[in-house]
Amino acid sequence: MKPYRHVHRKRENPWQEGITVCRGRLWLERDGATFLGTGRVVLLERIREHGSISRAARSMKMSYKHAWDLVDSMNRKSPDPLVITSKGGKGGGGARLTAAGEREVAAFWELQERFSAFLQAETK
Amino acid sequence: MKPYRHVHRKRENPWQEGITVCRGRLWLERDGATFLGTGRVVLLERIREHGSISRAARSMKMSYKHAWDLVDSMNRKSPDPLVITSKGGKGGGGARLTAAGEREVAAFWELQERFSAFLQAETK
Repeated sequence: MKPYRHVHRKRENPWQEGITVCRGRLWLERDGATFLGTGRVVLLERIREHGSISRAARSMKMSYKHAWDLVDSMNRKSPDPLVITSKGGKGGGGARLTAAGEREVAAFWELQERFSAFLQAETK
Repeated sequence: MKPYRHVHRKRENPWQEGITVCRGRLWLERDGATFLGTGRVVLLERIREHGSISRAARSMKMSYKHAWDLVDSMNRKSPDPLVITSKGGKGGGGARLTAAGEREVAAFWELQERFSAFLQAETK
């Protein structure tokens, strides 16, 4: 077998002896579908900050429909809703995080911290 | 605030009190770009099995170009190449895993096992 052209490339890539970083993504599923992930948790935090799904969505450059679908999905998958909304009014009504929503947000970031520690330990 | 329509949906979703499964994805980066992930490691194993990049790619329904680019990327990011190829011949030459390739494949699956243990521990 002829050797691979790798030898020549080696000189062009001084960083190849650098460290190997272990990275990852984490999410929670219920009934085989996503319940919470980073994007959803950030959306919940933006709802808390902005007091409405539409303003929260806009702050993330997310469509209102997509944000609404995500909130609906999280609420359906939770024994207690994470977000409650009020209809009508200027700007399409308000929304706020429930106590259950606050708990899920806090628990998710704690999980992420444990995951970060795992990834850091695996990074040589 | 008017309550969310959640209450009505609750009855339609008996599974919502089910367990929360923690899931995730893991990969290794070098110099800010992917070095190894599950797809790449499976490709390496298929190269070992089939003895050629093109046959390995076909077995994964992957284009030859994509498989070749992945192999090239892994080889460039490694001090020793993970795959060596020989040109020409029927079917476009052969390819085989090096000892370094074997080591990376084994180490990746060991890492995945530790990750699985982490995910399982986080699944309530």
